[in-house]
Amino acid sequence: MSNQGYIHLYTGNGKGKTTAALGLALRALGAGKRIFIGQFVKGMPYAEEKALVRFPEITIKKFGRNCFIENEPTQEDISTACEGLSEIAQLVPSGEYDMIVLDEICIALHFKLFKTEEVLNILANRTSHLEIVLTGRYAPDALYEVADLVTEMKEIKHYYKTGVQARKGIEF
Amino acid sequence: MSNQGYIHLYTGNGKGKTTAALGLALRALGAGKRIFIGQFVKGMPYAEEKALVRFPEITIKKFGRNCFIENEPTQEDISTACEGLSEIAQLVPSGEYDMIVLDEICIALHFKLFKTEEVLNILANRTSHLEIVLTGRYAPDALYEVADLVTEMKEIKHYYKTGVQARKGIEF
Repeated sequence: MSNQGYIHLYTGNGKGKTTAALGLALRALGAGKRIFIGQFVKGMPYAEEKALVRFPEITIKKFGRNCFIENEPTQEDISTACEGLSEIAQLVPSGEYDMIVLDEICIALHFKLFKTEEVLNILANRTSHLEIVLTGRYAPDALYEVADLVTEMKEIKHYYKTGVQARKGIEF
Repeated sequence: MSNQGYIHLYTGNGKGKTTAALGLALRALGAGKRIFIGQFVKGMPYAEEKALVRFPEITIKKFGRNCFIENEPTQEDISTACEGLSEIAQLVPSGEYDMIVLDEICIALHFKLFKTEEVLNILANRTSHLEIVLTGRYAPDALYEVADLVTEMKEIKHYYKTGVQARKGIEF
């Protein structure tokens, strides 16, 4: 049996990974697909969520409590992420959605909130039509291997480096 | 006067450039911003357009007749693109929008539908709060220079190469 749904991986250090996943979700929405977005490692109130709630075909859940990029993850961060992953493990083989976005899952792996093998097992259980979109920098090699499509977003220039702060509606 | 709106450039050969711009537009929408999307060099009926029409704050226009990547652009392609660029030239200094996305403008430049200097002149006339998002592979050096943020989307792996066709809701 050949799959007709594929695994996408958007990684690298440049801006555009989460937005690419969102744009993909938007396009899929326009084609009548049902979408689930799980956000790992994100605590900020995303403006896109406000836009996306206008679409009843999208379900968004946050599986991250905080942006702990500069701190160590706490036990609570780990258990929130693991609970999220368990939910994903149920959804992936269920056929309930046509596209599942696991936003910043690579960061969750980088911080060892759960294991790469657990993610690989979940991906292996997907239904043949399910499209899965993985994002986040520091993707492990195993995700490069399992993905059907990999784009590395490479930062060439970023205005943060000239002192610009993250802005509502642009970065979050 | 320092600008508070920036120029983004998403280029390179990987999947994710247009979707990153769409995701950015979606996020901006959630923050209450007014958005204009001009699509150069695109003839396909994009599913995202069907999703985006649910938002009255977005205006989308197509300034391209065909996907002529494998053909030479016709005189009609050139005039359609130039008319689009004239419209953008009016909008950029007008203050009517908070974000203007010029999708595939780099491809339009690559095919010499109009000149890089014309685009640079338009960008120079922007109001200080306007965010401009440029996409497309083959961005000329001058756009790298003028942009405040540049991400190169690098194709590491693409399922097209294993014979997968473009699919509605995923590629268009």
